[in-house]
Amino acid sequence: MKAKRSARLVDMTRYLMGNPNKVVPLTFFANRYDSAKSSISEDLTILRKTFMYTGAGLLETIPGAAGGSMFIPGIEKNEARQFIDEMRSSLEDNSRVLPGGYVYMNDLLNRPSILRQIGRIIATLYRDKKIDAVLTVATKGIPVAQSVATLLNVPFVIARHDSRITDGSTISVNYISGSQKRIEKMVLSKRSLPANSNVLIVDDFLRGGGSAAGLRSLIKEFDCEVAGIAFVAERVYNGPKKINKDEYTSLFKVDTNDKGIKVELGNFNFKKFYDFTEGEK
Amino acid sequence: MKAKRSARLVDMTRYLMGNPNKVVPLTFFANRYDSAKSSISEDLTILRKTFMYTGAGLLETIPGAAGGSMFIPGIEKNEARQFIDEMRSSLEDNSRVLPGGYVYMNDLLNRPSILRQIGRIIATLYRDKKIDAVLTVATKGIPVAQSVATLLNVPFVIARHDSRITDGSTISVNYISGSQKRIEKMVLSKRSLPANSNVLIVDDFLRGGGSAAGLRSLIKEFDCEVAGIAFVAERVYNGPKKINKDEYTSLFKVDTNDKGIKVELGNFNFKKFYDFTEGEK
Repeated sequence: MKAKRSARLVDMTRYLMGNPNKVVPLTFFANRYDSAKSSISEDLTILRKTFMYTGAGLLETIPGAAGGSMFIPGIEKNEARQFIDEMRSSLEDNSRVLPGGYVYMNDLLNRPSILRQIGRIIATLYRDKKIDAVLTVATKGIPVAQSVATLLNVPFVIARHDSRITDGSTISVNYISGSQKRIEKMVLSKRSLPANSNVLIVDDFLRGGGSAAGLRSLIKEFDCEVAGIAFVAERVYNGPKKINKDEYTSLFKVDTNDKGIKVELGNFNFKKFYDFTEGEK
Repeated sequence: MKAKRSARLVDMTRYLMGNPNKVVPLTFFANRYDSAKSSISEDLTILRKTFMYTGAGLLETIPGAAGGSMFIPGIEKNEARQFIDEMRSSLEDNSRVLPGGYVYMNDLLNRPSILRQIGRIIATLYRDKKIDAVLTVATKGIPVAQSVATLLNVPFVIARHDSRITDGSTISVNYISGSQKRIEKMVLSKRSLPANSNVLIVDDFLRGGGSAAGLRSLIKEFDCEVAGIAFVAERVYNGPKKINKDEYTSLFKVDTNDKGIKVELGNFNFKKFYDFTEGEK
């Protein structure tokens, strides 16, 4: 199509948002809109500034023959802070406390608008890592993992406690559940993770860290590397955890007792969020 | 921010894409950009035409005091056809056939770019239905359900075969697995689905239809209505199915035997996709 600037701006925004973390050559847009590369360059400058100003993320320019533009979704400091505050209030509700100190979060982690913000936050916290795949374990972690993987535009891989016929051949590991001291098993389809991938572990809730440690050994079995471990929430827990404090990121710390629930900010680093007022490019 | 047209077009596109199926009042944009409503109206006309021309979906204008603009993501006929053809070729690969005639699809249904297109297709096929929630059963259906729910901007609800502590109180139903004639159980957290919701059932694969029939009775137990049933693929199967042909939509029909796999188009109706050349608004 021969397109005017206004139509190009709309369609380029849509295209880049739908294809994050992917280098789109200048010629792709030039052909798509039957426009000069110089015009496309000017369009991209407008997009870059607007994405930055509104905290949508970065539009990187990749130079060279294989170069082009790449949209890296992120979240700006103030938007992140506001979302985390709202989420903290929603979580701090005594009716969420279940027997055994467990916390009901399904009603939040099944809403696309919430998952999208959590995805943007986790993607931003790990923006300096190379990530080839996101790994989680069925079932509760899947929506969060999918949301992060969608923004990073990488496959997400689901380990299970029981293998199914439709997994094909699997590799399994045994691990000790951190909170209940039981030996458990975790399996992952052999075809699901190529060797040498950098894998981000994502889960909804950290209790004793057993599942995360299991996923970590699964990653080793596949000759892959752990790029990071991210949780939506962790339980305040004084006993030993199967993973170390500096190995993972949590957005919230949750403490439940007879009196109810108390929710504080997790161990994530606010400085990782974009702060465009401070002149970050 | 006081924003120029070019920046407004970029940010409005991003905002509407991130908040689909939600009415955004004209005043929201007018305030956001410190611009006159008449300018915002002109911007929306540009967005509407571009979304239509590129097959991104519809930008509806909702009149009245509670009115505004609503982006309804969809997919245009030719893009749908091309994606379905490519997907069909990927599926028709003998190395996908597992013992018992099962089919390995994990490598496709864990890629965000594929899930997004499947989501757009299913959302478009059900665009004339009112949908308040998407329901699936763990585990394989979750990514597809989440993708559809994200585009419809409604919660997605996950039934399970075993209840977990973190589900809180649950309602369960028994059902007969269509292909294996066993009695199985399905549970859903009581808090997860409000009464009178219109629920779209989404799953990855239809064999005997037992799971879908189980989900259907679960929906009745919650005093809700079935808005439709959508599968990525169905197995060609001559025995009786627990759900009728006119109750569900499938994108692909898969036939496996000793010689390998054969994949054909499912029972969906191509006419449901947008065809902007025929002057649909």
